[in-house]
Amino acid sequence: MSRGPNKTFEPEMVLGKAMEVFWARGYEAASLAELLQNMGISRKSMYDTFGNKQALFLKALEHYAQTNLRSIKEQLLASGSPLRNIEQLLISMQKTHGKSGSKGCMLGTCTADFDTSDVEIAPVLRSYFARLENIYYEAISRAKIAGELSREADARDLARMLLCTTQGMALVGRVLDNETIPTSVVLTTIKALKKM
Amino acid sequence: MSRGPNKTFEPEMVLGKAMEVFWARGYEAASLAELLQNMGISRKSMYDTFGNKQALFLKALEHYAQTNLRSIKEQLLASGSPLRNIEQLLISMQKTHGKSGSKGCMLGTCTADFDTSDVEIAPVLRSYFARLENIYYEAISRAKIAGELSREADARDLARMLLCTTQGMALVGRVLDNETIPTSVVLTTIKALKKM
Repeated sequence: MSRGPNKTFEPEMVLGKAMEVFWARGYEAASLAELLQNMGISRKSMYDTFGNKQALFLKALEHYAQTNLRSIKEQLLASGSPLRNIEQLLISMQKTHGKSGSKGCMLGTCTADFDTSDVEIAPVLRSYFARLENIYYEAISRAKIAGELSREADARDLARMLLCTTQGMALVGRVLDNETIPTSVVLTTIKALKKM
Repeated sequence: MSRGPNKTFEPEMVLGKAMEVFWARGYEAASLAELLQNMGISRKSMYDTFGNKQALFLKALEHYAQTNLRSIKEQLLASGSPLRNIEQLLISMQKTHGKSGSKGCMLGTCTADFDTSDVEIAPVLRSYFARLENIYYEAISRAKIAGELSREADARDLARMLLCTTQGMALVGRVLDNETIPTSVVLTTIKALKKM
């Protein structure tokens, strides 16, 4: 069997390209033609390596989650003040989601995009949100231990608020053309954390 | 020209049926067949009354926004304590979005669903979010005037935080099967409002 010129490729890199298409267009609107064009591989290579469109989507989503959860965790684990790390993370999110043309969070857009009668995708998304909530929970707990947040602050409740507030900011940011809303949200969230 | 048996219908009611399909499935995945079946009208009646799929979608979205923004405004304008009205609204949202199979907010799901390169829908969604933000802003301002919130509280910042937190709660609620996250979010948001 002859191998086409694009048979050799880096799966992670190609998956990243598929991720960009799904992230911008959503699962349904992402056409196979656009996916293949962006991935730079043949239809056969795609099916051989990743499976059908749904399997490719789930792998692209996992790629997104792994990359982003790792990056958020690293930012929150930076040396120095744990609370300052949370603030820095929120400020970087504010900049990202305040940009015109921002795509939001792929976990969030998929959560909105998937059909509520589809029972396969919900547990996958739920588990990503739980991992993200735990990353926030650990960061808030470190800030409590460092004496930067009140001992009375409920780290679990605050982690869940952070999860929803940042998801909302990422979502609304998709239709914004300036930073006003993200800036207000980040200022208020940081203030709320400190007053709890 | 003969009129079919389903030529007589109540446009608002039929639009509500189309809204349900778009809300659950998203714009792309909502098929014309399912839309027509749920609306209970013929393809010709649909085109004559609402236009093509995109025009129908925009009318359904407007129907959703009008209905929900009016309802939220009414709840926040109920007699008695303005802060208590905000709390009651958040608690009712918590119950809605904590339910298994909840569909979230249609404005939010459309914001995630629409293609970021589509320049027509962004201003429509932006204007709905601005109206919702203003409804929250007015409610928070009334709570400040009533002395229930600190005079130092920034009503605009808080309104934007409410907008994003509730959008995030509605979004994450789509994949939840219990009320844990919405309950934490509502408790923390109410506490944050009172401490600002």
